[in-house]
Amino acid sequence: MKLINGGVCAAKGFTASGVHCGIRKNRTKKDVALIYSECPASAAAVYTTNLVKGAPLAVTKRNIANGIAQAVICNSGNANTCNAGGELVAEEMCAYVAEALKVQAEDVVVASTGVIGQVLDPTPIKNAMPALVAALSHEGSDAAAEGIMTTDTVKKDVAVEFTCGGKTCRMGGIAKGSGMIHPNMATMLVFITCDAAITPAMLQKALSSDIKNTFNMVSVDGDTSTNDMVTVLANGMAGNKVIDSEGEDFDEFMRALNTVTVGLCRMIAGDGEGATKLLECTVTGAKDEKNAKTVAKSVICSSLLKAAMFGADANWGRVLCAIGYSGAEVDVTKVGVSFASKKGEISVCENGCGVDFSEEKAKEILLEKEINVNITLGDGDARAVAWGCDLTYDYVKINGDYRT
Amino acid sequence: MKLINGGVCAAKGFTASGVHCGIRKNRTKKDVALIYSECPASAAAVYTTNLVKGAPLAVTKRNIANGIAQAVICNSGNANTCNAGGELVAEEMCAYVAEALKVQAEDVVVASTGVIGQVLDPTPIKNAMPALVAALSHEGSDAAAEGIMTTDTVKKDVAVEFTCGGKTCRMGGIAKGSGMIHPNMATMLVFITCDAAITPAMLQKALSSDIKNTFNMVSVDGDTSTNDMVTVLANGMAGNKVIDSEGEDFDEFMRALNTVTVGLCRMIAGDGEGATKLLECTVTGAKDEKNAKTVAKSVICSSLLKAAMFGADANWGRVLCAIGYSGAEVDVTKVGVSFASKKGEISVCENGCGVDFSEEKAKEILLEKEINVNITLGDGDARAVAWGCDLTYDYVKINGDYRT
Repeated sequence: MKLINGGVCAAKGFTASGVHCGIRKNRTKKDVALIYSECPASAAAVYTTNLVKGAPLAVTKRNIANGIAQAVICNSGNANTCNAGGELVAEEMCAYVAEALKVQAEDVVVASTGVIGQVLDPTPIKNAMPALVAALSHEGSDAAAEGIMTTDTVKKDVAVEFTCGGKTCRMGGIAKGSGMIHPNMATMLVFITCDAAITPAMLQKALSSDIKNTFNMVSVDGDTSTNDMVTVLANGMAGNKVIDSEGEDFDEFMRALNTVTVGLCRMIAGDGEGATKLLECTVTGAKDEKNAKTVAKSVICSSLLKAAMFGADANWGRVLCAIGYSGAEVDVTKVGVSFASKKGEISVCENGCGVDFSEEKAKEILLEKEINVNITLGDGDARAVAWGCDLTYDYVKINGDYRT
Repeated sequence: MKLINGGVCAAKGFTASGVHCGIRKNRTKKDVALIYSECPASAAAVYTTNLVKGAPLAVTKRNIANGIAQAVICNSGNANTCNAGGELVAEEMCAYVAEALKVQAEDVVVASTGVIGQVLDPTPIKNAMPALVAALSHEGSDAAAEGIMTTDTVKKDVAVEFTCGGKTCRMGGIAKGSGMIHPNMATMLVFITCDAAITPAMLQKALSSDIKNTFNMVSVDGDTSTNDMVTVLANGMAGNKVIDSEGEDFDEFMRALNTVTVGLCRMIAGDGEGATKLLECTVTGAKDEKNAKTVAKSVICSSLLKAAMFGADANWGRVLCAIGYSGAEVDVTKVGVSFASKKGEISVCENGCGVDFSEEKAKEILLEKEINVNITLGDGDARAVAWGCDLTYDYVKINGDYRT
């Protein structure tokens, strides 16, 4: 398996585009994206667990109930959520795509991201369809990635090439993350495409299993969005034997998927709103996976630790504190903590108590852009990883006046 | 019942003091407090649910197991937590008090607050005992309140006068709050004194019941401290008939306690680290109290809403979002939201959808120091209130480099 370029267009038969249609006032910001597969593809998705759900989610859910999709339309700037008639607007968006691309409206995945509670006027999207379709290309992944960004500062894409049943396959994805990131059973907006052949049922199985250790282990601010969704389309154009059961091919597919999703998770966490650092918390020696995950997520979500990491302050007491209130079964007298980065690793706590360490060395380690918080629980063999970011002045700035 | 001055010294027979002993480097900051009752008092306490617990909590728990206490010693600057030999240090602190005041060491409540993970040298406290005892006075509440402050910017005290069994009684408290505030079954450091006569069992019952709707409904940053504790001493010097069962006198005692605790809750939330605003979220029309509390706490804890309140931005979609991921059973199509302050009230959401409102009026309301977020669920008669604060640049600043 190897990383390749191309994002959501890396897989055979997929093209994408993104343009400015006018939902956002800033004309330099693309605000709508289109992804298209030459042939109908197996489709799978997972959705936010928030009771307040964006209207597009309901439409997408209905459209891919049969396991088939051929195109994705997604706008930014308006979440089409908590308003009147949102589902009709989402259905109209699908109808525009169907007409422009000569596909079935029921084979379109629709998504929206942005401000909640305002009516989404679909007219700008309708007017932009000719431009969007004309711009569809195998080099269109970046434009599509830009079209779904909100407060994101960088485009997020990952693609891999892998072998499945003797055939070379490609899988790639784009993501929109940044704020309101604390997925639970589902996640931020992520669109993944693949040219491997796999049944809708196995594709859903792969996705539902993968997110438990990937997107569900990312937190930027503890807020779970109303519009989170991850979708995968697999169009089979690589010509491999259809994956219709567990086995070697499915395992290979899962490995490729995991590479794409972990890559996107790290990008989403590292580009959390206002973030200056990616935090990766690895818990080992847990009694079981559930406890490992609970600890990792609690630590990555602690506002106090996140602020300390922004200040490159090795305040490990906040790690212990977050372990203690996590709800996990932990023997605190066995806990060890170390901080690590490219500059090395330093142990700061053993058996639940502080150990002498060089504050200077700790500072050097914590001034890096990617920080590992490593926790040993001394209680078993289970492990978990969670991703997050620091809490900064800019998080407050971005969210103090998001709407204006 | 009426509010009076005097804080923790308002009740008959209680004196207090606070001095700088040297745990903190800044000589202008008091760092140790003493509270003394002329006679042994009924004592009750609730403690943090964090698995990582400060050493002083274990000692206090043992000391008041018999329901009796006569003095309180508390230092700031070092939490005496996650270190070696912490309990011995806490016991020494009690011994100093016992010797200086001629009370039993087992009748001393001991507490510490500050940095986690460093050994607490009790020598400065020992050396300060003569000064602490000499300074004990009926006007000493402010000095004691200062002695327990960490990043608090204002002293927190409340006192009330009430009638119980025909006798005039007084109750007052001081608190230390600010950061790491997200109590669960217990809370930040709060010391309450009262001159009513009440059995230890009824005192504990009153406290354990009260905190469910008061301290457990406050959140500053979602982090539950390792050292949270609320204690009440009631010395009976008001001469009322001992409250030893439920009834009118107990109800009156509960009302007084609730007035003191709600007052302290509002002060703790309003003085949250870096806070510029007190947020009070009131949920009505819930199916039951549990759902009402879950919704109120979820909203008050949302980083996104907290940042929006800092920016005086009526971004009610974030309220809906926090209701949706709270885990409460809610019919989102019935939810109503309004923002209110001294400047008036404005409805921003009805039946789960946005309504037209004047952004200008909303801004005027949200620029005030105390903001009410009022939520109606249209699902029953239960209600709950939670207190929190906005998320500001200063929260990040304070916590980016707390230890230095």
